[in-house]
Amino acid sequence: MTVELISVGTELLLGNIVNTNAAFLAEKCADLGLACYYQSVVGDNEERLSAVLKAAIGRSDVVILSGGLGPTEDDLTKEVAAKVAGRELYMHEPSKKQIEDFFRRRNMEPTGNNWKQAMVPKGAIVVENENGTAPGVIMEADGKKIILLPGPPNELVPMFEKSIMPYLAEGNSTIYSQTVKICGVGESRAETMVKDLIDKQTNPTIAPYAKNCEVHFRVTAKAENEKEAKKLLKPVVKELKSRFENHVYTTDVDTTLEKAVVDLLAANKLTVSTVESCTGGMLAARIINVPGVSDVYKSGYITYSNKAKRKILGVKKGLLEKKGAVSEEVAREMAKGAALISKAEVAVAVTGVAGPGGGTEEKPVGLVYIACNVCGKIKVKKYNFDGNRAKIRETTVSSALILMRQCILEYYSEVAFGKKLDENADRRK
Amino acid sequence: MTVELISVGTELLLGNIVNTNAAFLAEKCADLGLACYYQSVVGDNEERLSAVLKAAIGRSDVVILSGGLGPTEDDLTKEVAAKVAGRELYMHEPSKKQIEDFFRRRNMEPTGNNWKQAMVPKGAIVVENENGTAPGVIMEADGKKIILLPGPPNELVPMFEKSIMPYLAEGNSTIYSQTVKICGVGESRAETMVKDLIDKQTNPTIAPYAKNCEVHFRVTAKAENEKEAKKLLKPVVKELKSRFENHVYTTDVDTTLEKAVVDLLAANKLTVSTVESCTGGMLAARIINVPGVSDVYKSGYITYSNKAKRKILGVKKGLLEKKGAVSEEVAREMAKGAALISKAEVAVAVTGVAGPGGGTEEKPVGLVYIACNVCGKIKVKKYNFDGNRAKIRETTVSSALILMRQCILEYYSEVAFGKKLDENADRRK
Repeated sequence: MTVELISVGTELLLGNIVNTNAAFLAEKCADLGLACYYQSVVGDNEERLSAVLKAAIGRSDVVILSGGLGPTEDDLTKEVAAKVAGRELYMHEPSKKQIEDFFRRRNMEPTGNNWKQAMVPKGAIVVENENGTAPGVIMEADGKKIILLPGPPNELVPMFEKSIMPYLAEGNSTIYSQTVKICGVGESRAETMVKDLIDKQTNPTIAPYAKNCEVHFRVTAKAENEKEAKKLLKPVVKELKSRFENHVYTTDVDTTLEKAVVDLLAANKLTVSTVESCTGGMLAARIINVPGVSDVYKSGYITYSNKAKRKILGVKKGLLEKKGAVSEEVAREMAKGAALISKAEVAVAVTGVAGPGGGTEEKPVGLVYIACNVCGKIKVKKYNFDGNRAKIRETTVSSALILMRQCILEYYSEVAFGKKLDENADRRK
Repeated sequence: MTVELISVGTELLLGNIVNTNAAFLAEKCADLGLACYYQSVVGDNEERLSAVLKAAIGRSDVVILSGGLGPTEDDLTKEVAAKVAGRELYMHEPSKKQIEDFFRRRNMEPTGNNWKQAMVPKGAIVVENENGTAPGVIMEADGKKIILLPGPPNELVPMFEKSIMPYLAEGNSTIYSQTVKICGVGESRAETMVKDLIDKQTNPTIAPYAKNCEVHFRVTAKAENEKEAKKLLKPVVKELKSRFENHVYTTDVDTTLEKAVVDLLAANKLTVSTVESCTGGMLAARIINVPGVSDVYKSGYITYSNKAKRKILGVKKGLLEKKGAVSEEVAREMAKGAALISKAEVAVAVTGVAGPGGGTEEKPVGLVYIACNVCGKIKVKKYNFDGNRAKIRETTVSSALILMRQCILEYYSEVAFGKKLDENADRRK
């Protein structure tokens, strides 16, 4: 089955917003095993929208339109789609009631315009919108499916996941995915390590996605039902876990790297403090992005200047002068000082040259040292990152999280991280 | 003139990446006064790309294709476009030399594939790529223009700005824009305040863009030459500045809010320290996003837990118990403590409920207090923000920057911020 996406909205044509809806829908459709050959963006204009929709119906099995379901005169996606499908609109009472409830909960009055949103094409499946006033609409005709979704991502995403995905998966067969998330292994190395699996894959399929310092393998199985699909997934996930060993930080799609690190700290009853120079708070911000982190996160210090490194962390002036702020020795002293003043069991320190200025031949832009102190055992790692200031800082934060995870695991297992990985690789040679 | 965008790439169809190129190109084309009615995404497939390109040429004056200019067999945008335009490809020696130089500078050898990138359609304008090996291509035929750009944003963006924008502006007339950036005034209020200007606008035009806690007015003039365009812009920019008064933080498109705040601190020889609870380092990270901030930024503290607020900042245990960590009084004490320990002239403190948990009826998710201490004069402001954890934290950071700017300006001018704005509004009634 093929799918085609049509995003409706002048703000996309003007470049005021980036089309994240299309990326979301495309990824989910790929998971469902639907082939997407075309995506379009068109404005709230009857003639052009109608032409684009007709072309899409002509060449694709499923057409998903997003946007243009609002209450104003401008919004005409539903009206145009109904016209193209040859259907009349009628007042859908449950949607009307839903709109009334939506406003009542907010102590607001709906305007006359809002009832336009409760009008739906005859014979359509109406999909409840739990986060807004525009219901979703599914029309089936001549073996084609036309699906209308509201434009705001906070309405579109939950509606698609809750109602549209099961609808599209049905009839077909069940599609079930699991994601194995890996950190501390480069993209090309990770792909090489599973090339044999990918080359011979049929069902389940394995798709690698490289994110900042991480590789995610999405394993997707097709089967008659969920139980069968899970049965197909199990050995593949197990194989990936055995190949990547303790580099696998989760098999739960919703768990981020920072969440995994926070969980690891909590499981070992550890608290953490951060000291940052070039990342200036980004590492702390990412850790504190995890809700309920207050039992784990002790305190953070941003010591961008040399003076702050001395005054707050007690790094010696002589050391700063001799070795420079961006050095293994200073990173180590920062992690030592942070543990001392915060009394946290784990202290992470970051110092580096994020650019664009400040680089020298000896210490170029992108040179970063990260030190991790777990109960007095300090490991310092040197990095040379590529990219602009923002990219270097972002990569530094991810690398710090990975190093923290590694140091905590090593502290408790007393096994060097990645050692088994190399052994496994040797064994397969 | 109308323009149409075609993005070529399987990774877009699979949703692996978000189409930021389309947003960038759409925004720039809007600036140039080109009307964009259609955008498409299509894969590296000859038949489908050819059909989409033909449809685009049929209905638009300028067609911009991006992506698919790489060295591999898969990349066929140039080959397909040349075929559609009825042109043969030939080896373009300057491009070949450019590729040789590109590799030489990196101490690398080009592979045979790379020479494919130096092949260009006969009669085309070849556009040098300063950041990669794929040159851009412009073909003109029957009053239509077909423009091919490389897909990587770090190649596409500079090439478009340096070579394609002047090309598209030419013949036409010069297009010149200036952006007036405003903070601390809500979007709808800001738009109401200039409604009369927008209603009667012809040349220059005024386009408002709402960003997180900011409104940017892009003023765009069309004229015979740059000098004439600037002359047209001047009175409109002046009028906007007079209406929004000290809420205008810059008229330079590249200056961010954090840069404006850092510049204001530096101009007044002030240093700053930050203390953060719910934002956990995000405010510091945004300030430190400004290169060369080390003279201004003194130190930062992340006091997420009550204990950290007590130990680091000296907030009294009794006060935390009586008023709660998210309170006006605690915010004030945090800003007081931060100035004391850091010896910075300006100290900003943030405390709030970012959610999803932790909200109560009295202190709901989204309640945030920000305190700003300028040389001992402390202002505390209460906010109720909407949205999820990430959105609340982001809005808090922007609001803190705005409050900092306001407090510093008030301290030096001794005029209440926004007072003149209200007077101006009254005067216009």
